[in-house]
Amino acid sequence: MPRLNLGNINPHVVEAKYAVRGELAVKSEEYRARLRRGDTDLPFSEIISANIGNPQQLDQKPITFFRQVLSILEYPQLLDNEQVLLNSLGYKSDVLERAKFLLKSIGSVGAYSASAGVPAIKESVAKFLERRDGFPADPAHVYLSAGASSGVNTLLHIICATPASGVLVPIPQYPLYTASLSLLNATCVPYYLDEAAQWGTSVETIKEAYVTAKSNGTDVRAIVVINPGNPTGASLSEADIRSVLQFAAEEQLVVLADEVYQTNVFVGKFHSFRQVLLTLQKENPGKYGAVELASLHSISKGMVGECGHRGGYFELIGFDKEVEEQIYKFVSIMLCAPVTAQCLVELMVNPPQPGDPSYPLYEQEYNSIFEGLKQRATALYEAFKEMEGIECGEPQGSMYLFPTIHVPANAVDAARAEGRIPDEFYCMRLLEATGVCVVPGSGFGQKEGTLHLRTTFLAPGTEWVDSIKKFHREFMDKYR
Amino acid sequence: MPRLNLGNINPHVVEAKYAVRGELAVKSEEYRARLRRGDTDLPFSEIISANIGNPQQLDQKPITFFRQVLSILEYPQLLDNEQVLLNSLGYKSDVLERAKFLLKSIGSVGAYSASAGVPAIKESVAKFLERRDGFPADPAHVYLSAGASSGVNTLLHIICATPASGVLVPIPQYPLYTASLSLLNATCVPYYLDEAAQWGTSVETIKEAYVTAKSNGTDVRAIVVINPGNPTGASLSEADIRSVLQFAAEEQLVVLADEVYQTNVFVGKFHSFRQVLLTLQKENPGKYGAVELASLHSISKGMVGECGHRGGYFELIGFDKEVEEQIYKFVSIMLCAPVTAQCLVELMVNPPQPGDPSYPLYEQEYNSIFEGLKQRATALYEAFKEMEGIECGEPQGSMYLFPTIHVPANAVDAARAEGRIPDEFYCMRLLEATGVCVVPGSGFGQKEGTLHLRTTFLAPGTEWVDSIKKFHREFMDKYR
Repeated sequence: MPRLNLGNINPHVVEAKYAVRGELAVKSEEYRARLRRGDTDLPFSEIISANIGNPQQLDQKPITFFRQVLSILEYPQLLDNEQVLLNSLGYKSDVLERAKFLLKSIGSVGAYSASAGVPAIKESVAKFLERRDGFPADPAHVYLSAGASSGVNTLLHIICATPASGVLVPIPQYPLYTASLSLLNATCVPYYLDEAAQWGTSVETIKEAYVTAKSNGTDVRAIVVINPGNPTGASLSEADIRSVLQFAAEEQLVVLADEVYQTNVFVGKFHSFRQVLLTLQKENPGKYGAVELASLHSISKGMVGECGHRGGYFELIGFDKEVEEQIYKFVSIMLCAPVTAQCLVELMVNPPQPGDPSYPLYEQEYNSIFEGLKQRATALYEAFKEMEGIECGEPQGSMYLFPTIHVPANAVDAARAEGRIPDEFYCMRLLEATGVCVVPGSGFGQKEGTLHLRTTFLAPGTEWVDSIKKFHREFMDKYR
Repeated sequence: MPRLNLGNINPHVVEAKYAVRGELAVKSEEYRARLRRGDTDLPFSEIISANIGNPQQLDQKPITFFRQVLSILEYPQLLDNEQVLLNSLGYKSDVLERAKFLLKSIGSVGAYSASAGVPAIKESVAKFLERRDGFPADPAHVYLSAGASSGVNTLLHIICATPASGVLVPIPQYPLYTASLSLLNATCVPYYLDEAAQWGTSVETIKEAYVTAKSNGTDVRAIVVINPGNPTGASLSEADIRSVLQFAAEEQLVVLADEVYQTNVFVGKFHSFRQVLLTLQKENPGKYGAVELASLHSISKGMVGECGHRGGYFELIGFDKEVEEQIYKFVSIMLCAPVTAQCLVELMVNPPQPGDPSYPLYEQEYNSIFEGLKQRATALYEAFKEMEGIECGEPQGSMYLFPTIHVPANAVDAARAEGRIPDEFYCMRLLEATGVCVVPGSGFGQKEGTLHLRTTFLAPGTEWVDSIKKFHREFMDKYR
């Protein structure tokens, strides 16, 4: 027997589930490699990775201003030839200015920064928060992270003290939360989102989950809210957010607001937990003054879409000073977030403004990405609406649709015979038939007896949507 | 009381110690901020961060070839103007070729890669390992990581199953190991390095530590070796490595070889654990065939020095397939290593070769960094030799010197009165007097009754060395 084997390694790693890059994703990569090698035996000629929100793997182009600045940060000697940049390469003067500002603030992007991030970038984030929410922010409570995932990892490491430590997590959810709680051997306290109310948050449901968990001895410490939702795409109303904060204040729960999709909102308007909390604190300081809120944001999503750079931040409100010292120590152990990604955070929160030389192109690129996503979301939604046994809410935000699928009883039997949950069975057949990789709803959690799938709407064109439609018809006919 | 407080958060985070960025580092950053604000009340005009191996924060310039390639990866439209790059900006044709190869392999650096890294980059690493060691490597067992720290975090997460799981760690050590074991609530089994033998590894000492730990009920599973050493700077002989591998084979211990300083070797020659193990496997397959070895490398150190990008890799030999599946899942949860950092790994392991247009400059930059580090190490060593009560071994490798300091009894008393260990007391006074930030030996572990400090030799010039000398004289006089 090898020294390390499945029976003796960390059982919490073995227990953790992370379907977004699980069996289906691995199989899709195998197919992709076969296609690359010229294999013509497959019934498709392309893999569409609709399983992860990875905009630049598909069609989304990076924002020119951002990447021009980064090119200079990587090779500052470009600034020795400003005229070449300006006259021959199409860089605008504000690109050069921003690059100089960042180089002055960081030195080299090849040097470790301070553990919690470059001070000047934390200041930019604080100013952005103030502009966005109308309330000032203190850069001392901003922590730059290697994507929101790394921020969540940090915060859950601090929060989870014993196996009884519980965190309320929406279901369905992005599986980072359940996976991290498994790794930490803490307790996930699931609360179901309300599909009938466009996947909104019901405080009654949260209360029930909380009371049940408490009565089972769970020390519920925090509540996670993902807004706009992943995988649901829901965009919460201000009233929903108020209710959650009211409940958190009453029960003294730390609030983790995962707001990485804050610019991906098609219906209504994004309300940050921070803005709503600070408003409530003004209205009723006695009740809300002590609420502990961590809000997370990322460069990976939205019109930025720079997942590969691994950048993001979290901001803390109301956290104890000694606890923040422990957070600082924790992030120090991994040294710092990637410095180019920190610079992308700065660019995201402080983009070109009207009047700036780079603004016209920035605005055009930003809006065209936004409109493109909206159109793709709508096209996919219309396709789902036409498909037998599929129910899909109108796209509201984020990068996903999360339709319910009803499959015939024969399909359920066939899935069981293969040892699979029916939605996993469906997604596996879809991949085999079309090369389209999506994630079964079971990977995010779903109400007993319901089946879903999550797909991004990032892929361009309608061919892949047509191939899903065709597959679905044949699947239904086969198992009817 | 806030919901989260020092008394109820994760006790393993609270227990973890990480002195490299601890109180002294925080204080040095405060001083730096004061100097930046124009404060003239301090007895120094500059902070020298000799506490972390952060080459580009000090004097080390990035390698031009690497950064030119990265500038194109960040802004691929530069390739629309090849003539401008070649004729006006000094890029060579091999820079353009490499950028095209990488862009073809990865798509956009803004897209998530496969969880364990870009396949083509894993292949480059495998080819490098084969060239370095004379034995082929399989890219399937190469995992690209966000620096070696992230690789260590992954491996220890897998290895540590219960509080009784033990890992042999050299003392003194880079505190990532003890901190990670604290976070995982596992057992650190310290084995002391032999200062009298230039901080070499004594298998007798390791055996004693192992036997004692086993008899105390610790399930010792793995041994960490840092070669070249951090903080000690030691460079292990092939015989030392053979002994460790023999012991690991006999006791069935997983070997973690932290080889991030493999190119920082001034005395003798670097021997990789991989090369020695594969040689032993050839000589005696029955005894060595099943050894499980993880070797780690990084872009942060050596002549590359690209810490801020957060890149590295680990390669596994002899690991169980099911365990590797768990490693894959674990790294998937954090999605992937930063993609530009993965590209830097490719550039590091596959640099320009003689005959390539970029080779002459690359070779000149590389050699001049190497020689510069050697000269600085020697100059600092000579300074320490002259200082009363300081004993320092000849520099062998890595980026550090780790001298023993003997302080007068009065200094020990003064330290105790301040609630400090004497070496911490010494380093604090040094920072306050000179602006030079080093790390006390207690941050790495040291034999009871001995005192050390760790300093990098990255800072240029001799002024800072002179200021240490002057401080030391005054300190000794004051407490004599």
